[in-house]
Amino acid sequence: MIGTVSLVGAGPGDPELLTRRAAARLASADLVLYDALVAPEVLELAPRAQRFFVGKRAGRKAIAQETIHRLMIRAARQGRRVVRLKSGDPFVFGRGGEEALALDAAGVPFEIVPGVSAAMAAPALANIPVTHRGLSSAFVVVSGHAPSAYQPVLDGLAPNAITVVVMMGLASRSAIARDLLSRGWRAGTPVAVLLAASTERADTWMGTLSDLASGAGPSETGDAGTLVIGEVVAVGRQLGSSREQSPATEIEEACVAQA
Amino acid sequence: MIGTVSLVGAGPGDPELLTRRAAARLASADLVLYDALVAPEVLELAPRAQRFFVGKRAGRKAIAQETIHRLMIRAARQGRRVVRLKSGDPFVFGRGGEEALALDAAGVPFEIVPGVSAAMAAPALANIPVTHRGLSSAFVVVSGHAPSAYQPVLDGLAPNAITVVVMMGLASRSAIARDLLSRGWRAGTPVAVLLAASTERADTWMGTLSDLASGAGPSETGDAGTLVIGEVVAVGRQLGSSREQSPATEIEEACVAQA
Repeated sequence: MIGTVSLVGAGPGDPELLTRRAAARLASADLVLYDALVAPEVLELAPRAQRFFVGKRAGRKAIAQETIHRLMIRAARQGRRVVRLKSGDPFVFGRGGEEALALDAAGVPFEIVPGVSAAMAAPALANIPVTHRGLSSAFVVVSGHAPSAYQPVLDGLAPNAITVVVMMGLASRSAIARDLLSRGWRAGTPVAVLLAASTERADTWMGTLSDLASGAGPSETGDAGTLVIGEVVAVGRQLGSSREQSPATEIEEACVAQA
Repeated sequence: MIGTVSLVGAGPGDPELLTRRAAARLASADLVLYDALVAPEVLELAPRAQRFFVGKRAGRKAIAQETIHRLMIRAARQGRRVVRLKSGDPFVFGRGGEEALALDAAGVPFEIVPGVSAAMAAPALANIPVTHRGLSSAFVVVSGHAPSAYQPVLDGLAPNAITVVVMMGLASRSAIARDLLSRGWRAGTPVAVLLAASTERADTWMGTLSDLASGAGPSETGDAGTLVIGEVVAVGRQLGSSREQSPATEIEEACVAQA
Protein backbone atom coordinates (compact mmCIF):
# COMPACT_ATOMS: atom_id res chain seq x y z
CA MET A 1 0.00 0.00 0.00
CA ILE A 2 1.53 3.28 -1.08
CA GLY A 3 1.65 6.15 1.39
CA THR A 4 0.77 9.76 0.81
CA VAL A 5 2.46 13.14 0.92
CA SER A 6 0.76 16.29 2.20
CA LEU A 7 2.45 19.54 1.22
CA VAL A 8 1.39 21.57 4.24
CA GLY A 9 1.61 25.26 5.02
CA ALA A 10 2.74 25.88 8.60
CA GLY A 11 1.62 29.51 8.62
CA PRO A 12 3.77 32.42 9.77
CA GLY A 13 5.03 30.84 13.02
CA ASP A 14 2.41 30.87 15.76
CA PRO A 15 0.98 27.31 16.00
CA GLU A 16 -2.48 28.84 16.55
CA LEU A 17 -2.30 30.10 12.96
CA LEU A 18 -2.02 26.61 11.53
CA THR A 19 -5.15 25.41 9.78
CA ARG A 20 -7.21 22.66 11.36
CA ARG A 21 -6.31 20.38 8.44
CA ALA A 22 -2.59 21.05 8.88
CA ALA A 23 -2.87 20.12 12.55
CA ALA A 24 -4.77 16.93 11.65
CA ARG A 25 -2.16 15.90 9.08
CA LEU A 26 0.65 16.51 11.59
CA ALA A 27 -1.15 14.49 14.25
CA SER A 28 -1.31 11.42 12.00
CA ALA A 29 2.03 11.85 10.23
CA ASP A 30 4.73 9.18 10.26
CA LEU A 31 7.40 11.47 8.85
CA VAL A 32 7.66 15.26 8.84
CA LEU A 33 10.19 16.95 6.55
CA TYR A 34 10.40 20.56 7.67
CA ASP A 35 12.06 23.77 6.64
CA ALA A 36 13.81 26.50 8.51
CA LEU A 37 11.36 29.00 10.07
CA VAL A 38 8.99 26.24 11.17
CA ALA A 39 8.54 26.79 14.90
CA PRO A 40 9.34 23.98 17.39
CA GLU A 41 5.82 24.37 18.84
CA VAL A 42 4.41 23.44 15.44
CA LEU A 43 6.52 20.28 15.29
CA GLU A 44 5.14 19.27 18.68
CA LEU A 45 1.80 18.77 16.94
CA ALA A 46 3.32 15.68 15.28
CA PRO A 47 4.12 13.56 18.36
CA ARG A 48 4.26 10.19 16.59
CA ALA A 49 6.27 11.33 13.57
CA GLN A 50 9.93 11.09 12.80
CA ARG A 51 10.94 14.72 12.16
CA PHE A 52 13.65 15.59 9.74
CA PHE A 53 15.04 19.06 9.08
CA VAL A 54 15.63 19.67 5.37
CA GLY A 55 15.97 23.45 5.34
CA LYS A 56 18.85 25.82 5.01
CA ARG A 57 20.92 26.59 8.08
CA ALA A 58 23.13 29.67 8.24
CA GLY A 59 26.59 28.86 6.97
CA ARG A 60 25.75 25.37 5.80
CA LYS A 61 24.83 24.05 2.43
CA ALA A 62 21.14 23.33 2.00
CA ILE A 63 19.99 19.82 1.26
CA ALA A 64 19.55 19.50 -2.50
CA GLN A 65 15.99 19.80 -3.72
CA GLU A 66 16.34 16.43 -5.44
CA THR A 67 17.25 14.83 -2.12
CA ILE A 68 14.03 16.15 -0.60
CA HIS A 69 12.08 14.70 -3.51
CA ARG A 70 13.81 11.34 -3.06
CA LEU A 71 13.13 11.28 0.70
CA MET A 72 9.43 12.01 0.19
CA ILE A 73 9.00 9.47 -2.58
CA ARG A 74 10.88 6.72 -0.77
CA ALA A 75 8.91 7.21 2.44
CA ALA A 76 5.59 7.22 0.58
CA ARG A 77 6.56 4.02 -1.25
CA GLN A 78 7.22 2.46 2.16
CA GLY A 79 3.58 3.22 2.95
CA ARG A 80 4.30 6.13 5.27
CA ARG A 81 2.21 9.26 5.72
CA VAL A 82 4.55 12.09 4.94
CA VAL A 83 4.01 15.74 5.79
CA ARG A 84 6.23 18.17 3.90
CA LEU A 85 5.97 21.18 6.17
CA LYS A 86 6.74 24.62 4.82
CA SER A 87 6.66 28.01 6.43
CA GLY A 88 3.62 30.06 5.37
CA ASP A 89 1.85 28.65 2.33
CA PRO A 90 3.42 25.72 0.47
CA PHE A 91 2.83 27.30 -2.95
CA VAL A 92 4.25 30.76 -2.23
CA PHE A 93 8.03 30.92 -2.75
CA GLY A 94 8.41 27.44 -1.33
CA ARG A 95 9.32 25.31 -4.35
CA GLY A 96 6.11 23.47 -3.59
CA GLY A 97 5.24 23.30 -7.27
CA GLU A 98 8.48 21.49 -8.01
CA GLU A 99 7.80 19.02 -5.23
CA ALA A 100 4.27 18.39 -6.48
CA LEU A 101 5.60 17.73 -9.99
CA ALA A 102 8.21 15.30 -8.65
CA LEU A 103 5.61 13.41 -6.60
CA ASP A 104 3.22 13.28 -9.51
CA ALA A 105 5.94 11.99 -11.84
CA ALA A 106 6.68 9.24 -9.30
CA GLY A 107 3.02 8.30 -9.03
CA VAL A 108 2.82 9.26 -5.37
CA PRO A 109 -0.58 10.60 -4.22
CA PHE A 110 -0.26 14.06 -2.75
CA GLU A 111 -2.39 16.98 -1.62
CA ILE A 112 -1.83 20.67 -0.99
CA VAL A 113 -2.88 22.05 2.39
CA PRO A 114 -2.83 25.83 1.98
CA GLY A 115 -1.48 27.88 4.85
CA VAL A 116 -1.61 31.44 6.10
CA SER A 117 1.13 33.25 4.22
CA ALA A 118 3.27 35.83 5.96
CA ALA A 119 2.67 37.97 2.87
CA MET A 120 -0.71 38.87 4.32
CA ALA A 121 -0.38 37.74 7.94
CA ALA A 122 2.74 39.74 8.80
CA PRO A 123 1.07 43.02 7.76
CA ALA A 124 -2.28 42.02 9.31
CA LEU A 125 -0.70 41.25 12.67
CA ALA A 126 0.83 44.75 12.59
CA ASN A 127 -2.67 46.09 11.86
CA ILE A 128 -1.76 46.87 8.25
CA PRO A 129 -4.41 45.87 5.69
CA VAL A 130 -2.79 45.11 2.32
CA THR A 131 -5.85 46.62 0.63
CA HIS A 132 -7.85 49.56 1.97
CA ARG A 133 -10.60 51.61 0.39
CA GLY A 134 -9.20 54.82 -1.03
CA LEU A 135 -5.60 53.79 -0.39
CA SER A 136 -4.91 50.61 -2.36
CA SER A 137 -7.10 48.21 -4.28
CA ALA A 138 -4.35 45.70 -5.06
CA PHE A 139 -1.11 44.27 -3.75
CA VAL A 140 1.93 42.65 -5.29
CA VAL A 141 4.08 40.06 -3.57
CA VAL A 142 7.71 39.69 -4.63
CA SER A 143 10.73 37.89 -3.29
CA GLY A 144 13.58 40.17 -2.25
CA HIS A 145 16.28 37.54 -2.45
CA ALA A 146 17.72 38.76 -5.78
CA PRO A 147 17.28 41.83 -7.99
CA SER A 148 16.44 39.55 -10.92
CA ALA A 149 13.40 38.39 -8.94
CA TYR A 150 11.97 41.78 -8.00
CA GLN A 151 13.27 44.39 -10.44
CA PRO A 152 11.27 43.38 -13.54
CA VAL A 153 8.10 43.53 -11.47
CA LEU A 154 8.72 46.68 -9.44
CA ASP A 155 9.92 48.62 -12.48
CA GLY A 156 6.53 48.33 -14.16
CA LEU A 157 4.40 49.51 -11.25
CA ALA A 158 2.80 52.92 -11.44
CA PRO A 159 4.31 54.81 -8.47
CA ASN A 160 2.25 54.64 -5.28
CA ALA A 161 -0.59 52.82 -7.08
CA ILE A 162 -0.35 49.53 -5.23
CA THR A 163 0.82 47.95 -1.98
CA VAL A 164 4.18 46.19 -2.36
CA VAL A 165 4.95 43.24 -0.09
CA VAL A 166 8.52 41.96 -0.19
CA MET A 167 9.24 38.58 1.36
CA MET A 168 12.79 37.58 2.27
CA GLY A 169 13.60 41.22 1.68
CA LEU A 170 15.60 42.27 4.73
CA ALA A 171 18.98 42.31 3.03
CA SER A 172 17.78 44.14 -0.05
CA ARG A 173 15.48 46.65 1.63
CA SER A 174 17.65 49.71 0.93
CA ALA A 175 18.24 48.71 -2.69
CA ILE A 176 14.51 48.18 -3.23
CA ALA A 177 13.67 51.53 -1.64
CA ARG A 178 16.22 53.34 -3.82
CA ASP A 179 14.83 51.55 -6.87
CA LEU A 180 11.29 52.69 -6.15
CA LEU A 181 12.38 56.28 -5.40
CA SER A 182 14.21 56.42 -8.72
CA ARG A 183 10.97 55.29 -10.40
CA GLY A 184 9.02 58.19 -8.96
CA TRP A 185 7.58 56.82 -5.73
CA ARG A 186 7.03 59.50 -3.06
CA ALA A 187 9.90 59.85 -0.58
CA GLY A 188 7.35 60.00 2.23
CA THR A 189 5.62 56.74 1.28
CA PRO A 190 5.12 54.88 4.56
CA VAL A 191 6.92 51.56 4.91
CA ALA A 192 7.04 48.84 7.54
CA VAL A 193 9.64 46.18 8.26
CA LEU A 194 8.02 43.24 10.03
CA LEU A 195 10.29 40.79 11.81
CA ALA A 196 9.35 37.28 12.98
CA ALA A 197 5.64 38.02 12.66
CA SER A 198 3.32 36.07 14.97
CA THR A 199 6.17 34.84 17.17
CA GLU A 200 7.33 36.09 20.57
CA ARG A 201 10.22 37.87 18.86
CA ALA A 202 7.89 39.82 16.56
CA ASP A 203 9.00 43.39 15.98
CA THR A 204 7.71 46.16 13.76
CA TRP A 205 9.63 49.11 12.42
CA MET A 206 7.83 51.87 10.54
CA GLY A 207 9.28 54.74 8.58
CA THR A 208 9.32 56.18 5.11
CA LEU A 209 10.69 55.03 1.80
CA SER A 210 13.49 57.59 2.00
CA ASP A 211 14.38 56.40 5.54
CA LEU A 212 14.67 52.89 4.19
CA ALA A 213 16.73 54.00 1.19
CA SER A 214 19.21 55.71 3.47
CA GLY A 215 19.75 52.60 5.55
CA ALA A 216 17.40 53.25 8.46
CA GLY A 217 15.38 50.42 9.94
CA PRO A 218 16.13 47.47 12.15
CA SER A 219 19.60 46.00 12.02
CA GLU A 220 19.97 42.64 10.29
CA THR A 221 18.62 39.71 12.18
CA GLY A 222 18.36 36.03 11.46
CA ASP A 223 14.60 36.25 11.66
CA ALA A 224 12.25 36.20 8.74
CA GLY A 225 11.37 39.65 7.56
CA THR A 226 8.60 41.11 5.44
CA LEU A 227 8.59 44.61 3.98
CA VAL A 228 5.38 46.45 3.25
CA ILE A 229 5.53 49.59 1.14
CA GLY A 230 2.52 51.77 0.50
CA GLU A 231 -0.07 54.12 1.91
CA VAL A 232 -1.80 51.27 3.78
CA VAL A 233 1.07 51.29 6.27
CA ALA A 234 -0.39 54.55 7.59
CA VAL A 235 -3.44 52.58 8.78
CA GLY A 236 -1.16 50.33 10.82
CA ARG A 237 0.66 53.34 12.20
CA GLN A 238 -2.58 54.97 13.26
CA LEU A 239 -3.89 51.81 14.90
CA GLY A 240 -0.56 50.95 16.46
CA SER A 241 0.08 54.33 18.00
CA SER A 242 -3.11 54.25 20.01
CA ARG A 243 -2.38 50.89 21.59
CA GLU A 244 0.12 50.03 24.25
CA GLN A 245 -0.23 46.27 24.26
CA SER A 246 -0.38 43.90 21.37
CA PRO A 247 -4.05 43.35 20.53
CA ALA A 248 -3.76 39.59 20.94
CA THR A 249 -2.47 39.96 24.50
CA GLU A 250 -5.22 42.41 25.32
CA ILE A 251 -7.87 40.09 23.94
CA GLU A 252 -6.49 37.06 25.77
CA GLU A 253 -6.49 39.02 29.03
CA ALA A 254 -10.02 40.26 28.48
CA CYS A 255 -11.16 36.70 27.76
CA VAL A 256 -9.49 35.39 30.92
CA ALA A 257 -11.00 38.21 32.97
CA GLN A 258 -14.45 37.39 31.62
CA ALA A 259 -14.17 33.66 32.12
CA MET B 1 -16.22 45.19 31.66
CA ILE B 2 -15.82 45.92 27.97
CA GLY B 3 -15.94 43.07 25.49
CA THR B 4 -13.68 42.41 22.55
CA VAL B 5 -13.91 42.11 18.81
CA SER B 6 -11.93 39.59 16.79
CA LEU B 7 -11.75 40.30 13.06
CA VAL B 8 -11.44 36.71 11.89
CA GLY B 9 -10.62 35.18 8.53
CA ALA B 10 -12.86 32.23 7.74
CA GLY B 11 -10.64 30.94 4.94
CA PRO B 12 -11.88 29.98 1.48
CA GLY B 13 -14.87 27.89 2.59
CA ASP B 14 -13.85 24.47 3.88
CA PRO B 15 -14.04 24.60 7.70
CA GLU B 16 -10.86 22.49 7.84
CA LEU B 17 -9.03 25.48 6.38
CA LEU B 18 -9.91 27.70 9.31
CA THR B 19 -6.99 28.44 11.60
CA ARG B 20 -6.96 26.94 15.05
CA ARG B 21 -7.27 30.44 16.53
CA ALA B 22 -10.29 31.23 14.36
CA ALA B 23 -11.97 28.02 15.59
CA ALA B 24 -11.15 28.93 19.20
CA ARG B 25 -12.59 32.42 18.85
CA LEU B 26 -15.78 31.03 17.28
CA ALA B 27 -16.12 28.47 20.06
CA SER B 28 -16.14 31.17 22.73
CA ALA B 29 -18.00 33.87 20.78
CA ASP B 30 -21.21 35.46 22.07
CA LEU B 31 -22.00 37.14 18.76
CA VAL B 32 -20.85 36.33 15.23
CA LEU B 33 -21.37 38.90 12.48
CA TYR B 34 -20.72 37.11 9.22
CA ASP B 35 -20.50 37.88 5.53
CA ALA B 36 -21.79 36.17 2.43
CA LEU B 37 -19.52 33.28 1.35
CA VAL B 38 -19.01 32.10 4.92
CA ALA B 39 -20.05 28.43 4.87
CA PRO B 40 -22.79 27.14 7.24
CA GLU B 41 -20.33 24.48 8.49
CA VAL B 42 -18.05 27.27 9.69
CA LEU B 43 -20.86 28.91 11.62
CA GLU B 44 -21.54 25.60 13.37
CA LEU B 45 -18.21 26.09 15.13
CA ALA B 46 -19.85 28.88 17.15
CA PRO B 47 -22.60 26.90 18.94
CA ARG B 48 -23.17 29.33 21.79
CA ALA B 49 -23.14 32.50 19.70
CA GLN B 50 -25.93 34.58 18.29
CA ARG B 51 -25.21 34.64 14.56
CA PHE B 52 -26.09 37.60 12.43
CA PHE B 53 -25.73 37.88 8.68
CA VAL B 54 -24.40 41.30 7.63
CA GLY B 55 -23.32 40.54 4.06
CA LYS B 56 -24.70 41.32 0.68
CA ARG B 57 -27.45 39.09 -0.68
CA ALA B 58 -28.23 39.04 -4.38
CA GLY B 59 -30.83 41.65 -5.23
CA ARG B 60 -30.91 43.21 -1.79
CA LYS B 61 -29.20 46.24 -0.44
CA ALA B 62 -26.21 45.46 1.74
CA ILE B 63 -26.20 46.54 5.36
CA ALA B 64 -24.36 49.84 5.57
CA GLN B 65 -20.78 49.58 6.73
CA GLU B 66 -21.52 52.07 9.50
CA THR B 67 -24.28 49.80 10.79
CA ILE B 68 -21.79 46.94 11.08
CA HIS B 69 -19.45 49.20 13.01
CA ARG B 70 -22.27 50.21 15.32
CA LEU B 71 -23.34 46.61 15.94
CA MET B 72 -19.79 45.55 16.83
CA ILE B 73 -19.17 48.51 19.10
CA ARG B 74 -22.49 48.21 20.90
CA ALA B 75 -22.04 44.49 21.53
CA ALA B 76 -18.50 44.97 22.80
CA ARG B 77 -19.67 47.72 25.15
CA GLN B 78 -22.23 45.27 26.51
CA GLY B 79 -19.28 43.05 27.43
CA ARG B 80 -19.82 40.52 24.66
CA ARG B 81 -17.16 38.62 22.75
CA VAL B 82 -17.76 39.48 19.13
CA VAL B 83 -16.37 37.65 16.13
CA ARG B 84 -16.50 39.58 12.89
CA LEU B 85 -16.18 36.71 10.43
CA LYS B 86 -15.02 37.40 6.91
CA SER B 87 -14.42 35.10 4.00
CA GLY B 88 -10.71 34.46 3.37
CA ASP B 89 -8.45 36.91 5.18
CA PRO B 90 -10.02 39.85 7.02
CA PHE B 91 -7.51 42.36 5.63
CA VAL B 92 -7.74 41.38 1.95
CA PHE B 93 -10.61 43.19 0.17
CA GLY B 94 -12.78 42.85 3.24
CA ARG B 95 -13.00 46.42 4.55
CA GLY B 96 -11.32 45.01 7.64
CA GLY B 97 -9.08 48.07 7.91
CA GLU B 98 -12.10 50.33 8.11
CA GLU B 99 -13.62 48.18 10.82
CA ALA B 100 -10.39 48.17 12.80
CA LEU B 101 -10.22 51.98 12.60
CA ALA B 102 -13.83 52.29 13.76
CA LEU B 103 -13.23 49.95 16.71
CA ASP B 104 -10.05 51.75 17.64
CA ALA B 105 -11.78 55.14 17.49
CA ALA B 106 -14.46 53.78 19.83
CA GLY B 107 -11.87 52.44 22.25
CA VAL B 108 -12.93 48.83 21.73
CA PRO B 109 -10.12 46.24 22.04
CA PHE B 110 -9.77 44.22 18.89
CA GLU B 111 -7.45 41.73 17.24
CA ILE B 112 -6.86 40.49 13.73
CA VAL B 113 -6.94 36.72 13.15
CA PRO B 114 -5.43 36.21 9.69
CA GLY B 115 -7.04 33.61 7.46
CA VAL B 116 -6.18 31.59 4.40
CA SER B 117 -7.01 33.85 1.47
CA ALA B 118 -8.61 32.44 -1.65
CA ALA B 119 -6.01 34.49 -3.54
CA MET B 120 -3.50 31.75 -2.80
CA ALA B 121 -5.72 28.87 -1.69
CA ALA B 122 -7.96 28.75 -4.75
CA PRO B 123 -4.96 28.30 -7.07
CA ALA B 124 -3.21 25.94 -4.64
CA LEU B 125 -6.23 23.66 -4.38
CA ALA B 126 -6.20 23.44 -8.19
CA ASN B 127 -2.49 22.52 -7.96
CA ILE B 128 -1.43 25.93 -9.30
CA PRO B 129 1.50 27.52 -7.43
CA VAL B 130 1.33 31.32 -7.68
CA THR B 131 5.13 31.37 -7.85
CA HIS B 132 7.28 28.74 -9.54
CA ARG B 133 10.99 28.69 -10.32
CA GLY B 134 11.57 29.70 -13.91
CA LEU B 135 7.94 30.68 -14.48
CA SER B 136 7.07 33.45 -12.05
CA SER B 137 8.83 34.98 -9.09
CA ALA B 138 5.98 37.26 -8.06
CA PHE B 139 2.21 37.60 -8.07
CA VAL B 140 -0.22 40.47 -8.00
CA VAL B 141 -3.68 40.31 -6.45
CA VAL B 142 -6.37 42.66 -7.73
CA SER B 143 -10.10 42.98 -7.31
CA GLY B 144 -12.09 42.52 -10.51
CA HIS B 145 -15.19 44.30 -9.30
CA ALA B 146 -14.53 47.52 -11.25
CA PRO B 147 -12.11 48.63 -13.97
CA SER B 148 -10.98 51.51 -11.76
CA ALA B 149 -9.70 48.92 -9.28
CA TYR B 150 -7.70 46.74 -11.68
CA GLN B 151 -6.81 48.79 -14.74
CA PRO B 152 -4.19 51.10 -13.20
CA VAL B 153 -2.39 48.05 -11.83
CA LEU B 154 -2.64 45.70 -14.80
CA ASP B 155 -1.66 48.42 -17.28
CA GLY B 156 1.78 48.78 -15.72
CA LEU B 157 2.73 45.12 -15.65
CA ALA B 158 5.37 43.88 -18.06
CA PRO B 159 3.53 41.29 -20.20
CA ASN B 160 3.82 37.72 -18.93
CA ALA B 161 6.28 38.75 -16.21
CA ILE B 162 4.10 37.97 -13.21
CA THR B 163 1.17 35.82 -12.07
CA VAL B 164 -2.07 37.79 -11.94
CA VAL B 165 -4.75 36.73 -9.45
CA VAL B 166 -8.12 38.42 -9.83
CA MET B 167 -10.59 38.07 -6.99
CA MET B 168 -14.30 38.77 -7.52
CA GLY B 169 -13.41 38.75 -11.18
CA LEU B 170 -15.99 36.46 -12.78
CA ALA B 171 -18.05 39.19 -14.36
CA SER B 172 -15.08 41.10 -15.73
CA ARG B 173 -12.99 38.16 -16.91
CA SER B 174 -13.39 38.84 -20.63
CA ALA B 175 -12.69 42.55 -20.23
CA ILE B 176 -9.56 41.83 -18.20
CA ALA B 177 -8.33 39.28 -20.75
CA ARG B 178 -8.86 41.75 -23.62
CA ASP B 179 -7.05 44.42 -21.61
CA LEU B 180 -4.01 42.23 -21.10
CA LEU B 181 -3.94 41.09 -24.74
CA SER B 182 -3.98 44.71 -25.89
CA ARG B 183 -0.99 45.32 -23.59
CA GLY B 184 1.06 42.64 -25.28
CA TRP B 185 0.36 39.53 -23.21
CA ARG B 186 0.64 36.30 -25.20
CA ALA B 187 -2.65 34.99 -26.57
CA GLY B 188 -1.67 31.50 -25.42
CA THR B 189 -1.02 32.53 -21.80
CA PRO B 190 -2.68 29.82 -19.71
CA VAL B 191 -5.51 30.95 -17.44
CA ALA B 192 -7.71 29.28 -14.87
CA VAL B 193 -11.12 30.18 -13.53
CA LEU B 194 -11.61 28.71 -10.08
CA LEU B 195 -15.13 28.50 -8.72
CA ALA B 196 -16.12 27.93 -5.08
CA ALA B 197 -12.64 26.71 -4.17
CA SER B 198 -12.40 24.25 -1.26
CA THR B 199 -16.15 23.61 -1.22
CA GLU B 200 -18.11 20.67 -2.63
CA ARG B 201 -19.13 22.81 -5.56
CA ALA B 202 -15.52 23.57 -6.49
CA ASP B 203 -14.89 23.65 -10.21
CA THR B 204 -11.88 24.54 -12.32
CA TRP B 205 -11.86 25.73 -15.91
CA MET B 206 -8.56 26.11 -17.74
CA GLY B 207 -7.88 27.72 -21.09
CA THR B 208 -5.92 30.54 -22.64
CA LEU B 209 -6.06 34.30 -22.41
CA SER B 210 -7.55 34.50 -25.89
CA ASP B 211 -10.22 31.92 -24.96
CA LEU B 212 -11.17 34.07 -22.00
CA ALA B 213 -11.18 37.26 -24.11
CA SER B 214 -13.61 35.66 -26.56
CA GLY B 215 -16.05 34.76 -23.81
CA ALA B 216 -15.12 31.11 -23.21
CA GLY B 217 -15.08 29.73 -19.70
CA PRO B 218 -17.70 28.70 -17.19
CA SER B 219 -21.06 30.41 -17.36
CA GLU B 220 -21.86 32.90 -14.62
CA THR B 221 -22.60 31.43 -11.24
CA GLY B 222 -23.42 32.90 -7.90
CA ASP B 223 -20.33 31.33 -6.42
CA ALA B 224 -17.10 33.09 -5.61
CA GLY B 225 -14.61 32.99 -8.43
CA THR B 226 -10.90 33.57 -8.70
CA LEU B 227 -9.01 34.04 -11.97
CA VAL B 228 -5.37 33.10 -12.31
CA ILE B 229 -3.47 34.32 -15.35
CA GLY B 230 0.09 33.28 -16.07
CA GLU B 231 2.49 30.52 -16.99
CA VAL B 232 2.10 28.89 -13.56
CA VAL B 233 -1.34 27.67 -14.62
CA ALA B 234 0.49 25.16 -16.84
CA VAL B 235 1.80 23.46 -13.69
CA GLY B 236 -1.76 22.96 -12.49
CA ARG B 237 -2.78 21.68 -15.89
CA GLN B 238 0.06 19.16 -15.90
CA LEU B 239 -0.71 17.97 -12.37
CA GLY B 240 -4.45 17.95 -12.91
CA SER B 241 -4.40 15.95 -16.11
CA SER B 242 -2.62 13.04 -14.51
CA ARG B 243 -5.10 12.67 -11.69
CA GLU B 244 -8.60 11.35 -11.79
CA GLN B 245 -9.71 12.11 -8.27
CA SER B 246 -9.24 15.24 -6.28
CA PRO B 247 -6.01 14.87 -4.32
CA ALA B 248 -7.74 15.50 -1.00
CA THR B 249 -10.17 12.63 -1.59
CA GLU B 250 -7.36 10.34 -2.59
CA ILE B 251 -5.40 11.19 0.55
CA GLU B 252 -8.41 10.76 2.82
CA GLU B 253 -9.07 7.34 1.30
CA ALA B 254 -5.46 6.29 1.64
CA CYS B 255 -5.49 7.40 5.29
CA VAL B 256 -8.67 5.46 5.98
CA ALA B 257 -7.26 2.38 4.24
CA GLN B 258 -4.12 2.54 6.36
CA ALA B 259 -5.88 3.13 9.65
